[in-house]
Amino acid sequence: MTRPDNDTFLRACRREPTDYTPVWLMRQAGRYLPEYRRVREKAGDFMSLCRNTELATEVTLQPVDRLGVDAAILFSDILTIPAAMDCGLRFVSGEGPVMDKPVRSEADVGALPVPDPGDELRYVPDAVASVRKALNNRVPVIGFAGSPWTLATYMVEGGSSKTYGIIKRMAYDEPAVLHRLLDKLARSVTDYLNAQIAAGAQAVQIFDTWGGVLTPEAFREFSLTYLRRIVNGLTLVNDGERVPVILFTKGGGAWLGDLADTGADVLGLDWQTDPAEARRQVGGRVALQGNLDPAILYARPERIEREVARTLDAFGPEPGHVFNLGHGVNPDVDPAHAEALLAAVHSLSRR
Amino acid sequence: MTRPDNDTFLRACRREPTDYTPVWLMRQAGRYLPEYRRVREKAGDFMSLCRNTELATEVTLQPVDRLGVDAAILFSDILTIPAAMDCGLRFVSGEGPVMDKPVRSEADVGALPVPDPGDELRYVPDAVASVRKALNNRVPVIGFAGSPWTLATYMVEGGSSKTYGIIKRMAYDEPAVLHRLLDKLARSVTDYLNAQIAAGAQAVQIFDTWGGVLTPEAFREFSLTYLRRIVNGLTLVNDGERVPVILFTKGGGAWLGDLADTGADVLGLDWQTDPAEARRQVGGRVALQGNLDPAILYARPERIEREVARTLDAFGPEPGHVFNLGHGVNPDVDPAHAEALLAAVHSLSRR
Repeated sequence: MTRPDNDTFLRACRREPTDYTPVWLMRQAGRYLPEYRRVREKAGDFMSLCRNTELATEVTLQPVDRLGVDAAILFSDILTIPAAMDCGLRFVSGEGPVMDKPVRSEADVGALPVPDPGDELRYVPDAVASVRKALNNRVPVIGFAGSPWTLATYMVEGGSSKTYGIIKRMAYDEPAVLHRLLDKLARSVTDYLNAQIAAGAQAVQIFDTWGGVLTPEAFREFSLTYLRRIVNGLTLVNDGERVPVILFTKGGGAWLGDLADTGADVLGLDWQTDPAEARRQVGGRVALQGNLDPAILYARPERIEREVARTLDAFGPEPGHVFNLGHGVNPDVDPAHAEALLAAVHSLSRR
Repeated sequence: MTRPDNDTFLRACRREPTDYTPVWLMRQAGRYLPEYRRVREKAGDFMSLCRNTELATEVTLQPVDRLGVDAAILFSDILTIPAAMDCGLRFVSGEGPVMDKPVRSEADVGALPVPDPGDELRYVPDAVASVRKALNNRVPVIGFAGSPWTLATYMVEGGSSKTYGIIKRMAYDEPAVLHRLLDKLARSVTDYLNAQIAAGAQAVQIFDTWGGVLTPEAFREFSLTYLRRIVNGLTLVNDGERVPVILFTKGGGAWLGDLADTGADVLGLDWQTDPAEARRQVGGRVALQGNLDPAILYARPERIEREVARTLDAFGPEPGHVFNLGHGVNPDVDPAHAEALLAAVHSLSRR
């Protein structure tokens, strides 16, 4: 038993009572931190930083030290899997990720390897183990992956997209090809998260970042199916404890009931979703995570504090709330504002 | 009385029974049509086309001729108002609209004129009158404007944005400044739509394109308030008939009850919204417009037809459905696919 000294986050994920509301921030280790930018310069490009165990560990711990978050999340990227599938991933400044070998046909899908997390992706569980050691049980570490649908959008479109025209044409006209791709990705994500859990991850989050660009029917067919399959395929025990699974579908506020039915432990809410309405949709089946507008970090600290109070109030007194933003920290915010957010959550939620 | 020969669209807006489901498409006059691209080349830049009565009339009628839509929508842009407020609007290829004089302070807001639709914006009601004449009562013409919040995002950010960090900082830290701007915009939009109605517009649509980037509370405070004020300020009679108002908040699926309370006649739905759930939220108070995923136009005509059938079915047999996409037509679709969509709606919905 190596329960972390601060297990508030894990208790909230299990809907157990806690002394205060635990908080972490999506993209808490990142460009808004000057100490991150210094390490990033040393590492060279973004994927080199992800692949460097020592430096990835260092940046993972930065927000634990500076902000006092109640969980660390592995510093990495959802595109590690497409990169290991040999899609020719590059990060182009100002344009985001580009895949030089987009997946467009049955043959393209057939040729994709399911990467071995003990081999090409070994650097990820290695980083988890290293983070776990460096944390020395201060707080739990969260592993993560992108959802199959989200990864597929980058692989089929060849990068980011505004219309998702290529992958949606595939969904409408060649659904069997897309399902074969999603099936391969679901197997890969399952192996990948299991390897992170085996390496010591005490919770895992699946980022369904682009699930919300689908119609309700298409969401159920092309994203939800595979989220459910992954949750069912995970070995959710670590140190004798259940490893909670967090699902976050951006724009998925209307589909929380479906997401709760997957067997996930926690659902992440975006800032457009009303917490009381979310509670109504999911009942007491899952814990909830969220959901401040990330833009609150542009506001003055007093204003941030007010918004924290409003949000704590909206989630109500019942256990099962992990405080977070409704999406990642933006790169141009003042770290002092993130500190103010953390302090406000911790002080205002303590009974 | 100059009721149009085809008044199916207007009857559906009023929730009266119709022989078939009327249909038009947001951005139906646009770059996907080769006949549009030819006119655009003649006109020069985009705003010059909007300002040219003869050419704007020609492109407005193109989809009526080619597709047989049940309503024409004036060819124009939501940014006519910020342009007339002297914000230094330019369209930069690949980047979208840029405002060289962004509105950032109390003084900036104070200096903004409320443009006179009989003067600087005169070209817009002139175009409506010209379209009305050219249509010769074949189908009704829809006038439109952007919502105050949506216009303000461009004016404050200085163009498009991913994070809305500047305007949201203003909303959190200087709400009085933002409210003053929104108030000015609401007065301007009201005058502008009334001028379009006076010139012959038989319906009007307000595009709240970016309402969905707000939290529920901020949506009510910064967008809904002004939508309600505009609806109340419109002179909604033309040719002795009520002029229906259509509100479309992209990403507003959870707030349809609030939108119905504004007094609007029709609510536009995006493709993420389930029509049955929308009916449940609004009861019989308003008609509904929508809501195919615009990406359906990338699919094969047979697939388009299946999706049309599913959508007609989802809206159900009760009157009060205007068929449309859930957002605008993308510029890279095949016009033959839009024709297939139109034919399918007309044939499948006829009893």
